[in-house]
Formats: sequence, structure tokens, C-alpha cells
Amino acid sequence: HGYRWIPGTAVACDLCCFQIIVFDEECFQGRRHEFTSECCNVMEFGFETVRSMKVESGAWVGYEHASYQGQQFILERGEYPQCDAFGGSNAYHIERMTSFRPISCANHRECRMTIFERENFLGRKGELSDDYPSLQAMGWCNNEVGSLRIQAGAFVCYQYPGYRGYQYIMECDRHCGEYKHFREFGSHCQTPQIQSIRRIQQ
Amino acid sequence: HGYRWIPGTAVACDLCCFQIIVFDEECFQGRRHEFTSECCNVMEFGFETVRSMKVESGAWVGYEHASYQGQQFILERGEYPQCDAFGGSNAYHIERMTSFRPISCANHRECRMTIFERENFLGRKGELSDDYPSLQAMGWCNNEVGSLRIQAGAFVCYQYPGYRGYQYIMECDRHCGEYKHFREFGSHCQTPQIQSIRRIQQ
Repeated sequence: HGYRWIPGTAVACDLCCFQIIVFDEECFQGRRHEFTSECCNVMEFGFETVRSMKVESGAWVGYEHASYQGQQFILERGEYPQCDAFGGSNAYHIERMTSFRPISCANHRECRMTIFERENFLGRKGELSDDYPSLQAMGWCNNEVGSLRIQAGAFVCYQYPGYRGYQYIMECDRHCGEYKHFREFGSHCQTPQIQSIRRIQQ
Repeated sequence: HGYRWIPGTAVACDLCCFQIIVFDEECFQGRRHEFTSECCNVMEFGFETVRSMKVESGAWVGYEHASYQGQQFILERGEYPQCDAFGGSNAYHIERMTSFRPISCANHRECRMTIFERENFLGRKGELSDDYPSLQAMGWCNNEVGSLRIQAGAFVCYQYPGYRGYQYIMECDRHCGEYKHFREFGSHCQTPQIQSIRRIQQ
């Protein structure tokens, strides 16, 4: 699937398992805790905040505040040595991650969504099942999406082209996959501006 | 190709043409200039810097300094109302874009590159022809890429997973497509850390 390894090298299969290690200091220093399922409030584990992390498997969503509130941002496998490495936006710095949860419905090959020009699933529409660093380059009419419906899988929608700016994690098994107004995109969402969209893989 | 429009809506074909409109104030205000080819130093057009822009067609690379020096960042079709919308990294804010040029070799469907564990094309290797928000999730051994070779098209390599952090624009028709040491990744590159890679489309 577009990624061929030289014979003899192993490719780990980490579908269906989740692991994240969080640290309260930058560069994987200080207090450390490992999670394999959701965390509603990291302060209950003695953390003031999370300043670095390693995602060992699965895809996760991080939230600025406890109880999955505030800015949200996608966390995929890899190393995040400081807050700036995982914060959701250039424009509005996140200095903290207080809650996080796995994304269980992500399946790269089966992601399907429909975007609509206006709220309540009205106006022009476009059907997406790929990654789109620029919706406008793909023929979308403007820099906004009024509403959207996820038929399968999970996506990240971004405010600006090239996967920049505010992030909104959209899943088929949340809100019944229906986001009929930009205020349902996320608790911090102020505008229907969405200019790039990509699928999430576990 | 993963994006189906309802019948009757037109999809603009903007292959092979380039247009960018830059402004010296945020939100598309102030002095304005339109370019259809490279600009080595926007100050020669009376700009102190660029604070917002609209990419009307094509993919471009922006640079922090004149003569295509300093931090680099991908610019695809869409609207960038402030510096934070186009700057290349969360961690190190770019407050300016002084030069920019079109990327002429980008063709999403034909992008091919090989990444190597160590410099000078040594060690383990992986062949890429898709988008990879997490190299580690695809089986890559660590958080670094020692060297790389572009056989076709153009890619953006990012320091962190999920298309975050420093950006390095890599093209088959620059450096003969060969980047044998991380210092060739970009003039601002301090480390071989690369954790996500994606193709560029014109």
C-alpha cells in the first residue's frame, strides 16, 4: 500500500491496541505515566499538565481542558518532546493537555464523509474518502464548510490549508457522525472556516 | 479519485498555472501584489513583509528570508489571513515571508521517494509513494531519517507526527533529488528528526 520495505525487516502490527506515555516535563523527563485507555483528567494522576509524550500505538485525541473540553488535537504514533509539537494551532498556543482518549473507529481505507456548503446539510456537497491538503485545489467553492456527515471512519478537519490551524476531530461514532453546524465541530470552534481535511488511521 | 461532485458543478483545472496574491497587512488588507512566478525578494516590490496571502493556483514554497533562505513552508491553494496560518512551525514562529517560488514538479499520483536510516543512503530503507502522518505507525524504526532520495514529484517532510513542526520541501528536480545529509534538508535544519511525510500536488 505505497510503502514497501526491504525483505527481512519487520513491520509491527499495532491495530486494536492503544498506548501513550505522558511526562510532566519537556523531552520525556519528570513524572511519567502510561495509559492504554482514556484519561478524563490527568491531574488525578498527580500531573499539573503534560509537557511531552510518546504515542506508542493507536491514534488519540488530546484536549486542552479536563473532561475532553477546549481545543482538540490529533495524536498519532511518534514522539512529541514539547507542547509546541502537539498543540493544535499555530495561532493560539496550547500550553497544556489535560484529557485524552483513543480514537477507536479510525480505518484509513474505509473513511468516508460528505461536506456541505451550508448548515443543516444544505447547499453544494462534496464526498471525500482521501486526504485533501487544500479543499479549494480539489474544487471546493470557498474556505468554509457549513456542515458535514461522517459515514465511516474518522477525519481531522483544519482551519487552514496544509493541515494548519485549529483542528476538529470528526468521527462516525460520535454525534451519530453528524455535525450540522460549526458550533458542533468543537467546543472552541468560532467559525466554519475549514480548508484542509485528512483521514485518521489507527 | 476519492472526491465526487454532484453533477452540474464545475471543477476548475488549474494544473500548469501559478498565481499568488500577497498583502502587507493581515486579513488581505494594505498593499497588494499578484505573482505568477518566483519572487526572490518581496522588498523590491515595496513590501516590508507579507502578513496575509491568497494562493489562487499551484503549490508554492515560502521562505523566511530573501533569496530562498531560512525556514521554508508549503503553500497550497487557499487563504492565509495571518502569519500564523502559513508559518512552518509551532515551535519557532515565523513572522515574515520574504521570498517564494512555485513548485513545478509536483504530481500527486507519481510521487516516489526512498528514505534511509543513515546519511549517505545507508542503513535500513523505506519506499514511499503516499502520505504518512506517522512514519513510525508505518513501521519506520525511529524518529529520524538520515538521508533520502526523490525519484519523482515533491514531498513535504515534517519534524513531528501529524504534519507539525519544521517543514522541509523536497523535490526531484532540486539537488538531483538527492539529500544525503540532514544539513541538505534545509538551511535551518538542525537535526535529522522527521516523523511525518506527505506528497505535494500542484
